[in-house]
Amino acid sequence: VEEKKEADKKDPYGNDPKRHPALKPASEKPFNAEPPPSLLIHSYLTPNDLFFIRNHLPVPVIDPKTFSLQVAVEKENGGAKLSLDDLKSKFPKKSVTTTIQCSGNRRSEMIKIKSVKGLNWGIAAISTAEWSGVTLDAILKHSGIDIDKVDCKHVQFEGMDKGPDGATYGASIPIEIARSLKNEIIVAYKMNGKDIPRDHGYPLRIIIPGIVGARQVKWLNKIVLSKEESSSHWQQRDYKGFNSSIDWHNVDFSKAQAIQELPIVSAICEPAEGEMLEDAEEVTIKGYAWSGGGRGIYRVDVSADGGKTWHEADLNSNNQSPYKAWAWTLWEATVPLPKSSKNTQLICKAIDSSYNCQPDSVEGIWNLRGVLSNAWHRVSVTIPNDQR
Amino acid sequence: VEEKKEADKKDPYGNDPKRHPALKPASEKPFNAEPPPSLLIHSYLTPNDLFFIRNHLPVPVIDPKTFSLQVAVEKENGGAKLSLDDLKSKFPKKSVTTTIQCSGNRRSEMIKIKSVKGLNWGIAAISTAEWSGVTLDAILKHSGIDIDKVDCKHVQFEGMDKGPDGATYGASIPIEIARSLKNEIIVAYKMNGKDIPRDHGYPLRIIIPGIVGARQVKWLNKIVLSKEESSSHWQQRDYKGFNSSIDWHNVDFSKAQAIQELPIVSAICEPAEGEMLEDAEEVTIKGYAWSGGGRGIYRVDVSADGGKTWHEADLNSNNQSPYKAWAWTLWEATVPLPKSSKNTQLICKAIDSSYNCQPDSVEGIWNLRGVLSNAWHRVSVTIPNDQR
Ligand SMILES: [Mo]
Ligand SMILES: [Mo]
Repeated sequence: VEEKKEADKKDPYGNDPKRHPALKPASEKPFNAEPPPSLLIHSYLTPNDLFFIRNHLPVPVIDPKTFSLQVAVEKENGGAKLSLDDLKSKFPKKSVTTTIQCSGNRRSEMIKIKSVKGLNWGIAAISTAEWSGVTLDAILKHSGIDIDKVDCKHVQFEGMDKGPDGATYGASIPIEIARSLKNEIIVAYKMNGKDIPRDHGYPLRIIIPGIVGARQVKWLNKIVLSKEESSSHWQQRDYKGFNSSIDWHNVDFSKAQAIQELPIVSAICEPAEGEMLEDAEEVTIKGYAWSGGGRGIYRVDVSADGGKTWHEADLNSNNQSPYKAWAWTLWEATVPLPKSSKNTQLICKAIDSSYNCQPDSVEGIWNLRGVLSNAWHRVSVTIPNDQR
Repeated sequence: VEEKKEADKKDPYGNDPKRHPALKPASEKPFNAEPPPSLLIHSYLTPNDLFFIRNHLPVPVIDPKTFSLQVAVEKENGGAKLSLDDLKSKFPKKSVTTTIQCSGNRRSEMIKIKSVKGLNWGIAAISTAEWSGVTLDAILKHSGIDIDKVDCKHVQFEGMDKGPDGATYGASIPIEIARSLKNEIIVAYKMNGKDIPRDHGYPLRIIIPGIVGARQVKWLNKIVLSKEESSSHWQQRDYKGFNSSIDWHNVDFSKAQAIQELPIVSAICEPAEGEMLEDAEEVTIKGYAWSGGGRGIYRVDVSADGGKTWHEADLNSNNQSPYKAWAWTLWEATVPLPKSSKNTQLICKAIDSSYNCQPDSVEGIWNLRGVLSNAWHRVSVTIPNDQR
């Protein structure tokens, strides 16, 4: 026992929290894990302990009593330093329900085509929660900053999670996104009504509806308005998209734009790949659909015959406007199975409120980092013998 | 001559204006036409006489002296009636450069798969102009209407073009779009600095950046804020998207959402389909890319070998923010041709600021009205013998 404790002290991950046993790890240190797909779509709001975990570094140990959030315009005096208590007592509390997706969600499908650098995520590096806290606009105003007038181009966020070199995780968003969402971006201290769990950013996470998880910095302790993008590795040399002829020998990260808003995605969570179906006549297919930029889901098409015929799925309305649909749409469809086949491929594809659709194939969007994997989702299943 | 005049009087299209001879008609009555693709990309702003024409009905004859624009909230007193002179003299003039695309642009590619109902548009039912006029917000305020507070869900627009039944063309947009674009939506009286030509809506057209042409009503004479969508045929039973298993025997227009914001599109304008190239080693490919909702173009990928390898095109910056990119991006790329091939397929596909991509195939997006045709654009060309 003593030896174990000693080892934990040396292991930078020794202070990581315990995780739910149902989570399926994509890596242990840093810890990254996703819930089983069938549990994922069990509820519109993902329970905190099943929410996918995407950590880049060890989970920091933070004392809420001494913690503070710094807010400033780069190279200017002024700004503010806010305690947790300030945030909870001096500002109105606002809640927003958003879906967060890792840019690497569904990367495993890209890896099958050609190897990529990144965690082998399945289809569940995506989850939904109701976040509560203080709007970015309120915090900036309190700090003497008018976001509509400030002469800056980016809003930088810094976390308290640190690498061995002492560098912390950081990211930024363009000022245009910050301005248009100033009352929807939230410095959150609650996740589904509870203190944010340590794995998800305790005590503070910045929630930016409609954009990639990578910019929604956890363990947030600095907001800096700047003329420059975040200089962090993850902003500059990661989380960008390239075409499929770019690989590590010819990539130039400075030529691509940082991923912010995400494109439309959907996935089949039930049945699972390789499953033997129970019924020979029809199958009930369930899944999620989501798009970035607040675009709602207009339609989900499902096929049980490899794409020959399509059926429109029933959407469980999320009650959000199609132009401020920050959260996913869960859906299901019961469709006839092809007769006298032993196997078939189930497919889903979604349409958002800008009538964006998903690309047909993974081949066409393959990229060296395996991000933005949003092709039609295909699941092969076995059909039982018809007993009639 | 007399007989011709007599016939013209009976022909509802007898008063239509003369058109530029370079325009290629998709239909004569009503007149619909597109410019040659190589002319289309000759300039960032499309010359007025080459701008694609999409008329649903005869071009109305309008006297600018007696013309007025009515503005009202449905079932309420108040509102305003504005003359052309009022619009030009009582309000600040605002200009916005936008690309307008017909929902049927590139329909000809869908028709090749399976017949659809609609005009056989090529790739040039899209054009760009600088529009000048009065913002929707200014006009509504002048009319005593606060768009952020009014208890309405849609903004309806009515034109003066009439069918044989007396019904006028009409359309509407959701209040959310009107609110977020209240200072970018323009009641335009100028197109590229000149009076709007009769084919394009003289004297007034509503310009709504980032959305489909069908809602940008020409010959505009009524703006009505309402709890309901426009009841027009084109809003209710047309210009909606369906999956490829829906055809005229099973379509239910009430189940789909009216097209508003458009998805990402791009096309190769040079070389043309079937062209014999001049050079055996490389080819210069030129085209346009555009996305709805103000999403700018982040990348255009071009292939000269049917999609085996991709090259990033050079983008001609349009100087618009990637989140308010209302106008297209013209691009070009010079890429090597496959060796010892007599024929090859050129392809382009684009990425917008939400990292949306185009679908790989027309098959996957085929729909009974042939709208939203934004698959990878493919052009087959012949390669000359290498003389070296
Ligand atoms: Mo991520
Ligand atoms: Mo159209």
